[in-house]
Amino acid sequence: MTVNSISYFFNPDSIAVIGASREEDKPGHIILKMLLDNKKKNILKSRIYPVNPKANELLGVKVYHSVKEIKDKIELAIIVVPAKYVPQVLTECGEKDVKASIIISAGFSEIGNKELELEVLKIGREYGIRIIGPNCIGVLSPWSGVDTIFLPVYKILSDGTKLVSTPRPKPGYVALISQSGAFGTVAMDYMVGEGIGLSAFVSYGNKIDVDEADLLEYFMSDDKTRVIIMYLESIENGRKFIDIARKVSAIKPIIVLKAGRTRAGSRAAASHTAAVAGLDAIYDAAFRRSGVVRVYDMEELFDVAKALYMLPPVKGNRIAIVTDGGGAGVMATDMAEIIGLDVPQLKGETKEELDKLREIGKIPYFSSIDNPIDLTGSATTEMYIEALDVLLRSNEIDMIIVLALHQVPGIRDPIKLAEEIANKVREYNFIKPVLAVDTGYSEVAVLERECFDKNNIPSYKIPERAIKAAKALYTYGSYLRKINRFNEYVSIFSSYNK
Amino acid sequence: MTVNSISYFFNPDSIAVIGASREEDKPGHIILKMLLDNKKKNILKSRIYPVNPKANELLGVKVYHSVKEIKDKIELAIIVVPAKYVPQVLTECGEKDVKASIIISAGFSEIGNKELELEVLKIGREYGIRIIGPNCIGVLSPWSGVDTIFLPVYKILSDGTKLVSTPRPKPGYVALISQSGAFGTVAMDYMVGEGIGLSAFVSYGNKIDVDEADLLEYFMSDDKTRVIIMYLESIENGRKFIDIARKVSAIKPIIVLKAGRTRAGSRAAASHTAAVAGLDAIYDAAFRRSGVVRVYDMEELFDVAKALYMLPPVKGNRIAIVTDGGGAGVMATDMAEIIGLDVPQLKGETKEELDKLREIGKIPYFSSIDNPIDLTGSATTEMYIEALDVLLRSNEIDMIIVLALHQVPGIRDPIKLAEEIANKVREYNFIKPVLAVDTGYSEVAVLERECFDKNNIPSYKIPERAIKAAKALYTYGSYLRKINRFNEYVSIFSSYNK
Repeated sequence: MTVNSISYFFNPDSIAVIGASREEDKPGHIILKMLLDNKKKNILKSRIYPVNPKANELLGVKVYHSVKEIKDKIELAIIVVPAKYVPQVLTECGEKDVKASIIISAGFSEIGNKELELEVLKIGREYGIRIIGPNCIGVLSPWSGVDTIFLPVYKILSDGTKLVSTPRPKPGYVALISQSGAFGTVAMDYMVGEGIGLSAFVSYGNKIDVDEADLLEYFMSDDKTRVIIMYLESIENGRKFIDIARKVSAIKPIIVLKAGRTRAGSRAAASHTAAVAGLDAIYDAAFRRSGVVRVYDMEELFDVAKALYMLPPVKGNRIAIVTDGGGAGVMATDMAEIIGLDVPQLKGETKEELDKLREIGKIPYFSSIDNPIDLTGSATTEMYIEALDVLLRSNEIDMIIVLALHQVPGIRDPIKLAEEIANKVREYNFIKPVLAVDTGYSEVAVLERECFDKNNIPSYKIPERAIKAAKALYTYGSYLRKINRFNEYVSIFSSYNK
Repeated sequence: MTVNSISYFFNPDSIAVIGASREEDKPGHIILKMLLDNKKKNILKSRIYPVNPKANELLGVKVYHSVKEIKDKIELAIIVVPAKYVPQVLTECGEKDVKASIIISAGFSEIGNKELELEVLKIGREYGIRIIGPNCIGVLSPWSGVDTIFLPVYKILSDGTKLVSTPRPKPGYVALISQSGAFGTVAMDYMVGEGIGLSAFVSYGNKIDVDEADLLEYFMSDDKTRVIIMYLESIENGRKFIDIARKVSAIKPIIVLKAGRTRAGSRAAASHTAAVAGLDAIYDAAFRRSGVVRVYDMEELFDVAKALYMLPPVKGNRIAIVTDGGGAGVMATDMAEIIGLDVPQLKGETKEELDKLREIGKIPYFSSIDNPIDLTGSATTEMYIEALDVLLRSNEIDMIIVLALHQVPGIRDPIKLAEEIANKVREYNFIKPVLAVDTGYSEVAVLERECFDKNNIPSYKIPERAIKAAKALYTYGSYLRKINRFNEYVSIFSSYNK
């Protein structure tokens, strides 16, 4: 039932924009315009009804003076009126039997106005209207076209230049839940840059009703969501969070970036959200117990999301590193050891096979096959494939990191290298997770990484970031094993790639 | 004398390319072509002489059959002949009174051929020829046009597309010394992407003669070098390194990325360079004692280089954080506390002044002024400037991080914001280091960061990276104070910006 009521936020048949505005830089204008644009583009199917007591027409659409004037039933109300009018507007929504409301308006507990907030909550409860907000930027669903992010895609600079400022991610499979609206918009910009698709984004502001646990539960059942990422500053109802997180992470991974880790940081968080951040160690324990994968900055958040979205988790922590640059191999090995992955010296059959490749010149005779497998600056595309073939079959390792620095002369076409690596991995049916690295910003580096990503081999800009992402596959895998869900999850995961 | 002899590598009057080749993908061709191109572009002033016993003309230039045939004196010989011919070629260079040689050729101690290497060294010593290499990619000086990096700027893919693969950084003030050639080329790609200028790059391979300490000493006296960054895997002569590093870091900062930190990492380094990496704690102590700023991955290497190149060091660790996104402020505060910077609660005059700004509405009445100073999503350009003006005058803080997330509606022109912040900082004569952050990859984010950088306000993609860079200003400042060189360095530094 909870989940059903929450789906109105993401897939409403009809939407009222209460506080729709004529002024172009007002949220009540930007939101209406975005929805109408998405409708025109045929992304949004919902019927749209602007509400404003003082207007009759806006952006070519009839305006209603009150939500009660609308003849159609209304599933979602987006409320952008000044705080003091919210109780009245929400009451009207209740009388109209609106199912869900996103209250964008600020001016509640975040500035000490706790009473007004409680009044709003009371009305919501009375009429059974679910509420996201107040004081939030709301919801973005690239699949359904619902978009209450009142920051326009473009900014027009003082000299008239129109530049992309708040881009929207493409439809995808990663859900983003952010306590901070600002973090959410920043994260979306990052996702667009990294080419990561979004299932839906929610910023829930003062969370008087819908909170992170409700959203987790919703995304658990959401077909489009395969990985859930969260930015948190505080959790009030820890018990509820743990219970639900535990349920969810048995089915799909939850990755959390929790700010306010330190004394000074939680002071900062408190002054910012009026919420007590609490002891970090308590959060840490709660996350561990409920299978949440914790990360420590925004780059890591998306690095890990990419790995867990593209790759199955693993049972073991043994990693093989293949490289054409000795230094990169050393740095990857360092980071692996520091965060608790094993870079085992190869022996037995694996070593014999690599040794043989070396003997017959299929990899350079001066390669190092000790793990890292260093093909050196004499590496070619064929050598990577030969070495990879041995490693994909080896039972001495659980994961493989391919450091494919594009500069070496023998890799004549680094994009083709990425493709051939992907073909080889596919030949083995993605049995072992493979992650890739190419460093730098040159055209070749960018295209090589894109090619890896396109083929479900998550790619990273520096070795250390790939290693941290690989670690998450092990962390989540270990949790799944602990709760006896490893095989079930892998089978769900396999169904994704079909 | 050492320094003088080393300058032949970077500013030779005349260069012989011994082993110049007709085959387009051979180092002996690529190097000659790059030098001739740089000469055509009037970047390189040196006279160029290709040497190849079997050719008479190459790329439109007369070819000599031996270095001894050349009538002109030769200051630098670039040697790209097979390993076994190197002794003979170097002897001829000696007889010709060549001053310096870069031996690109591989096939020495790195594959067990220690004897050949010793023979080469003996010849070098006998004739007083300085040697970089063997088994290296050599030298790049964007100022003088010397370029022995035998990886062409472009790769031509299988479908004929020509793409930038190994770009060369623009002339600048950061010197790069790398034990690993691969790391060096990767780093150059990174520098181009980050817009960081290079004074010179050296990869010294097996370092039979010129080593990291010699290069440090050279860059100490090099006018174009303001910051030295190094990638190291091992140091053989620790005493020499410490002595020289100590001398150098009293005058300009040295930033070191030392790989092979862990047991597994040093095993990897050993198999890669045949050198013993040694205990990390020993390196750590050596770096600390000699004023070297240590970093832990490539991104941090350049983040810190940017800060130390653009900003003076500081005496104290107290940092103010100004933000328009609460979450970003919290994350910055967390990282600051974790790495030992202080984010003090403001009091006294500073607090009074900020309070007053709040009262008279020059910053939002609901701003948080506790540090982080959170101007919230209602921030405007003017508000940033007002708050900054107070902080630049405050004696409660030593550094300022401006988190200027471009999304908020009140910042109509984020590039103008960056300019006005720079003007304000300039008004106070750069008295307090200011670092900036805007997150994401959107056009606006990229341009805002570029504008900060252009104005000597180093900018970063996420708050955590800016905080780590700020920490380096304090680390280096503390070292300078310890050795009583703080004021001298600051006065050298000030002369840079004139």
